[in-house]
Order: sequence, then C-alpha cells, then structure tokens
Amino acid sequence: MTNLVYRRQFAIEWGHCDPAGIVFNSRFFEFFDWSAWLLFEAALGVRPAELGTTFGIVGIPLVDAKARFCKPARFNDVADIASEVSEFRRSSFEVKHRISIDGELAVEGSETRVWAAQDPSDPVKLKGIPIPAAVIERFRAA
Amino acid sequence: MTNLVYRRQFAIEWGHCDPAGIVFNSRFFEFFDWSAWLLFEAALGVRPAELGTTFGIVGIPLVDAKARFCKPARFNDVADIASEVSEFRRSSFEVKHRISIDGELAVEGSETRVWAAQDPSDPVKLKGIPIPAAVIERFRAA
Amino acid sequence: MTNLVYRRQFAIEWGHCDPAGIVFNSRFFEFFDWSAWLLFEAALGVRPAELGTTFGIVGIPLVDAKARFCKPARFNDVADIASEVSEFRRSSFEVKHRISIDGELAVEGSETRVWAAQDPSDPVKLKGIPIPAAVIERFRAA
Amino acid sequence: MTNLVYRRQFAIEWGHCDPAGIVFNSRFFEFFDWSAWLLFEAALGVRPAELGTTFGIVGIPLVDAKARFCKPARFNDVADIASEVSEFRRSSFEVKHRISIDGELAVEGSETRVWAAQDPSDPVKLKGIPIPAAVIERFRAA
Repeated sequence: MTNLVYRRQFAIEWGHCDPAGIVFNSRFFEFFDWSAWLLFEAALGVRPAELGTTFGIVGIPLVDAKARFCKPARFNDVADIASEVSEFRRSSFEVKHRISIDGELAVEGSETRVWAAQDPSDPVKLKGIPIPAAVIERFRAA
Repeated sequence: MTNLVYRRQFAIEWGHCDPAGIVFNSRFFEFFDWSAWLLFEAALGVRPAELGTTFGIVGIPLVDAKARFCKPARFNDVADIASEVSEFRRSSFEVKHRISIDGELAVEGSETRVWAAQDPSDPVKLKGIPIPAAVIERFRAA
Repeated sequence: MTNLVYRRQFAIEWGHCDPAGIVFNSRFFEFFDWSAWLLFEAALGVRPAELGTTFGIVGIPLVDAKARFCKPARFNDVADIASEVSEFRRSSFEVKHRISIDGELAVEGSETRVWAAQDPSDPVKLKGIPIPAAVIERFRAA
Repeated sequence: MTNLVYRRQFAIEWGHCDPAGIVFNSRFFEFFDWSAWLLFEAALGVRPAELGTTFGIVGIPLVDAKARFCKPARFNDVADIASEVSEFRRSSFEVKHRISIDGELAVEGSETRVWAAQDPSDPVKLKGIPIPAAVIERFRAA
C-alpha cells in the first residue's frame, strides 16, 4: 500500500522573490500549508473550510515545520509540489512536501500537525484527539 | 485644531524586498494597516484587540486603499511613517499615511475604513454605524 | 476594438486570510501584481522574466496602486480575476483588475505602471520611456 | 564563554494572523530571518546591506529552516525574540531563535546558513567558503 500523493503545479511570482532573485524562505511554508489543505480535500472529499465541522475538530494546527533548501527557485520557474501524509500517529501526523523545478528537487519539507479539538477543561486551549481509522485509510492510494 | 499624528519608525527588511531590491508594493499596505491600528490605540487608549468590545463594533474594516509610490524603499532603509485620520464622516473615515526615508517622501497612501457593527437583518454582513462624537474628538491633537 | 482581457482563477488560501476570516487587504495587491505580469505574457508572448531584456527596459514598476473592497473574500472561495490595460499613455499605463466571487464583484483595483529604462544621467534611477506602438497594439483583442 | 544573543521585541500585527486568530506559521520564518540579519549587524558592526561587500561574500543564504510551535501567538501580543549562532562549522552555521510571549516560550526555531561566495566554476551557483576566525570570535559575548 502506498500513500495518496497530492500534486499541483504553480508559478513562482515576482512577489515571492527576494533581492537575490530567489523565493524568500517563508513563502515555501505558505506553499506547504495550502498543499496540506488540498491533500486533505483530495483524500476526504471535504472542502478545507468544512473540515472542522465535518469531523468535529477545530482544525489541524501545526506544531512543527521544517524545510531543506536544495536548489533555488527563481521568478517565473514552474514548481511542482507533491504532498503526502508520511505517518499517522494517535492524534498527530506528518505531512511531507517535495517541491521540484524542471524535475530536480528544490525544497523538501515537512509539517507535524495535530487532529485538534477544544480542550474541555480550558476552552481557549486545543488538545489532540484520536484520528479516526476511517480518516487514516482515506490517505492510502487505491 | 490639528489632527493627532501617530509616528513610528521601522527598518526595511530583506523579506520585504523584491528582485529589484525594493519593497514589494503589497508590503506598504501591511505597514499602513498596522499604523492604522496603532493610531487608534494612541488616540483612544484602547489596545487594538479590544477596540471591538470597547466600542460595540466588530472592527474598522477597509473599503478602499491606495498608495502612490514616489521613491523606492530599499533593504536596510529606515522608514518613518506618519498616520492621521484626515476626515471623519458619519460612519466611515479616511486614514492618511506618509512614509519617508531620509526625510524624503517615499510613499503616500490612504485607507477608507468603516466603523462597523453586525447588520441586525443579516448577521454575516457588516454595516456602518455612526461614529461617536467622543471617539472623533480624541483624534484632535491637544 | 476592445482590450485584451487576461483571466485566471485561484483559490483563497488559509494563509491569505486574517482573524476576521477574510482576505487581508495586502494580498489583493499580490494578486494584482501577478495578473499584470501574466497579462503582459499573454499579450506579448514573452515570459515575465524576459520582459526586460526583450524590450530594452528594466521593468514595469508601479507608481500607483489602489483597490476598492466591495464584498469580502473568504477562505476557500474561488476567485476569478480579469485584468486589462485600460489606458496607455506615452510612457505609463493603467492596469485594471476585477476580482469576482460567485459572479459578484468582490474587489476592483488598478495599478499605474511605467515602461521604465535606466536614467542615463543617473544609473540608480529609472525613467519612463515611450511605449512602442507595436507593444500597445498587442493589447487589443482580435 | 557564551554566545552573543541578539534580542528585540515586536508586536503581533493583525496581518500576521490567520482565521484562527493566531500567527500564520510562515510569518515566524520572516521574524527569524530579520533577527538573523540584526544579529550579524550587532556582532560585526556592519549593516545587513553591506555584509556582502565587507566580507567578500554574496550573502548568508539559508539551506535549512525549522520551527517548533509551543504556544500560539495572538494579535496584539508582544513577542520577545532572542537569537544566537549556536554553532559555527567550516563554511556554515546554525542560528537559534526563541520567541517568548509573557515570559513563556511560544516558538523555537533554527536556521542553517552558509557563508557563501560565487562558485568560480559556475557564476550562477553559490559555494560555501571558510568563515574567517575573526568573524566567529565576534559572536562570543564579552
């Protein structure tokens, strides 16, 4: 069994780039975040804005994010991003992202996210709750 | 009588700049927005996050924003921004912003904002309500 | 004769939105900027990154930008943006942008840009130069 | 001997926050980047924009960035960020950043950066070069 991989393509815009003419690092975390939402939509058939109400969670907040920059992405490059959940734990999971340009890996990253509900003992806090098995199995490729 | 003017100074960061080495235009609207909040804090003595509950509004949403770029702002420049409410109308107002670098005007902009409450006939909509006279007079300089 | 109109569709991402759940104003100026580049690519058949070298200019810098916010854009909305050059002057031009959501106008904006070369009397300055007639006619729809 | 620690304080702005009312993750990488430049300025007495020409490098590009989010940062919070070079290697180094709010750790991150010059065999590529000992010793606290 393999993981469902969500792929999209996007252009590197002028506003993404810094005075060195390459994508400013924080932008990659925006690209990752949006691909994480789209991966969930592809797997679960639920629009990002409805993820919370559909599953009784408040969201899938990030607890950790990282990126390794292998090759610069420049203005006008076409980026291919491939995203998958590489591991599900009890109430958290890892999303791996790989961004390639012209077939070469440019950036590799990962996000740790929590399947989160409101903490009943403190409504301003969030708390991880068990990820349903039915959710997890939707992230396996057919 | 003159208007209260809120001034702050900030540095132009690497991440604010584009491949031409100058601040990317959208960043100026971030600078304007934050100065609008700080101007309100200075005038009213209320922290931005408490503006809504203190005055029974949902916020001061933007309906119009504009900027004129006179002189580029570059990485490492020190920007001076001066902001004031140039006009109060019944339920909306104009915030004028001037950003100078080394004493020369770099960007001039303005925002039209609404003193907004929830529309009683449609809770997802906002509606301008009269700005209290006591609010307006706090924006006059002593 | 009508103007060439460049249209694209994009999703409103989580990271575009502010605590009110709507797109933060500065993001619209990013959307405008990228559509301006793509309009030029569509009209001239030249990739944004090659616009300068192809036409002997340093770029098409902004001197003025404005937006009018009619209807909020929310997380997960699908935005349609239509962009055209509404007026060419000797060395500057207006780009008009209209963003619609579900067929209703959400934001209307415009940018004034300059067809700019290096100023021969001062290499760190830019200077508008005449826009070639052959460029202008490419912005008329067939 | 201890490391030189660069500290600054900044406010969490409306435009930094997402629909959950907390800082959107990519913003932290902007905060880290700017503190890295300021740390270098504090240690070396050289303005960020002059770092390259002063030391014969093209810059200090990122090859890796990561963040761990411990506690949400909200609109109007005052953030304290402390940054230091935690390790110098031959031609790369680690910058550690800790962001606290009300004295509690909110985000912890690190950046791996390279002391980079143009690659003589390929001018569009960068290459790490040895970090001068005189540079390294400036990052020790008195």
